[in-house]
Amino acid sequence: MKCKICGKEATVYLNYPRMRLCKEHFIAYFERKIERTIKKYKMVSPEENILIAFSGGKDSAAVAHVFKKLGYSITGLHINLGIGEYSNKSEEYAKKQSKQIGLRLKVVDLRKILGKGVGEAKGSRPTCSVCGTTKRYILNRFAYEKGFDVVATGHNLDDETAFVFNNLLHWNTEYLAKQGPYLPGENKFVKKIKPLYETMEYEISEYVKNLGYTYITGKCPLSSGATILKYKKILDEMEQKGPGTKINFIKGFLKKKHLFEVEIQRSSPKECNICGMPSLGEKCAFCKIWHLEKPVKL
Amino acid sequence: MKCKICGKEATVYLNYPRMRLCKEHFIAYFERKIERTIKKYKMVSPEENILIAFSGGKDSAAVAHVFKKLGYSITGLHINLGIGEYSNKSEEYAKKQSKQIGLRLKVVDLRKILGKGVGEAKGSRPTCSVCGTTKRYILNRFAYEKGFDVVATGHNLDDETAFVFNNLLHWNTEYLAKQGPYLPGENKFVKKIKPLYETMEYEISEYVKNLGYTYITGKCPLSSGATILKYKKILDEMEQKGPGTKINFIKGFLKKKHLFEVEIQRSSPKECNICGMPSLGEKCAFCKIWHLEKPVKL
Repeated sequence: MKCKICGKEATVYLNYPRMRLCKEHFIAYFERKIERTIKKYKMVSPEENILIAFSGGKDSAAVAHVFKKLGYSITGLHINLGIGEYSNKSEEYAKKQSKQIGLRLKVVDLRKILGKGVGEAKGSRPTCSVCGTTKRYILNRFAYEKGFDVVATGHNLDDETAFVFNNLLHWNTEYLAKQGPYLPGENKFVKKIKPLYETMEYEISEYVKNLGYTYITGKCPLSSGATILKYKKILDEMEQKGPGTKINFIKGFLKKKHLFEVEIQRSSPKECNICGMPSLGEKCAFCKIWHLEKPVKL
Repeated sequence: MKCKICGKEATVYLNYPRMRLCKEHFIAYFERKIERTIKKYKMVSPEENILIAFSGGKDSAAVAHVFKKLGYSITGLHINLGIGEYSNKSEEYAKKQSKQIGLRLKVVDLRKILGKGVGEAKGSRPTCSVCGTTKRYILNRFAYEKGFDVVATGHNLDDETAFVFNNLLHWNTEYLAKQGPYLPGENKFVKKIKPLYETMEYEISEYVKNLGYTYITGKCPLSSGATILKYKKILDEMEQKGPGTKINFIKGFLKKKHLFEVEIQRSSPKECNICGMPSLGEKCAFCKIWHLEKPVKL
């Protein structure tokens, strides 16, 4: 099996577009793909400061490596979620990766700022929802307060198709309207971008392994029942039978997303009584979940 | 295992709502459900004449039986599609069922009116598409010319969820906008209704078997690669794991369907040069598919 470009021994087999590549040409292919995604969605300009959500996993390692190589100004933010050994290992990986990349890394530790891990919030919300809200809040507020222009996350094509699929099946049209590879900033919301939006998980693993990174693997121990994993499995099977299913589905979504925009409930922007960040009600979701009486220090 | 209503031996187990019923109470439950669907979507009024697409399968047998029992004025139309033994058997079943029901039955035979079976159209369209267009055209024109007020088809919840699912995955938003349990009539389009819209396939089989009907089973021999079957399988698995998935999905669709309506391309209604029926272009899809120079006689 030979590389399509140079004829040397191929080490990677891509399903869509169907292609075999050697290590060198796969890396070049991958990086060109991310660069194109960044340009296509006009994600970021060279003078902007980027904060990367840096988990210790493969996705954020790939994002940071590519941004570094392209010469952008980047900083990583690792959030230690306080999920025992899993979180400690994740932080170790994040630190190790950041040294390899040459990335400035900041760490916010949930146990230090809240006294609790993400699985210990009191209330009726599922843990995955608590975790999502908490991470989004910290990332955004950190970026806003420290003057970053944009927050980049490692969400990949598999994540995004599962998200859209789930929300379509449940007709959460407002969520659909607010999703995409690029979410513009507004007031205290910093711009959000997803450079891996069109890239599959297996390509990302292959890329970071080829570059010699190690990363946290395995599911989060608190996510065992997460419905999103069920949808990922269905989509994986569909992709297997019909290569290109995911990318075509997500591209179709972006073309038709405007149809859902009438569902966005416009409310006059409020600020949280506690922390002053954007909020739907008197108190923002983060301060509510964690029963805060004064803002956490990041 | 006892019937929820009378405590006698249960013969049917429903997954959603979870319930065991004896034969008698299942039949009552089923018929009440269809009656409610008819009322809920204001499908038909007692003085209207209904033409039922009568295939020889279980779905149309159930529709006809319930309508008859409710005292509506019904006629069946069987279309013999000319798919060899499969079509001949279907016609036999249709005739046998119609006698049992006491249903007036008309037959249109594709080989007689077109000289060909549905699998023998010359052109690039997939057979399932040829078949769908052909059946819809014949049903509508027959109903229009013979003065029927409404066409009823046996599409069930499994068919409808698979249709919506498929069209969502491919973002065929215009198709989605035009679908539903009730399509109003307009010009030469006769009103269309689907009384089994909220009823699952296994309930329908159970119902017609309980009433002593026999019917054509097995896939159409020409549909082996039909993608809709793939989606039915995925939805079946999801329903298995989460009873109620299908009905909730389709109800959500009906609530949000209006979002897709802006996608309908309004064009001034034209009439086919050949047959005078509604058409997007000079020639309608049916006359095009069958390369007709003069209208077929039904």
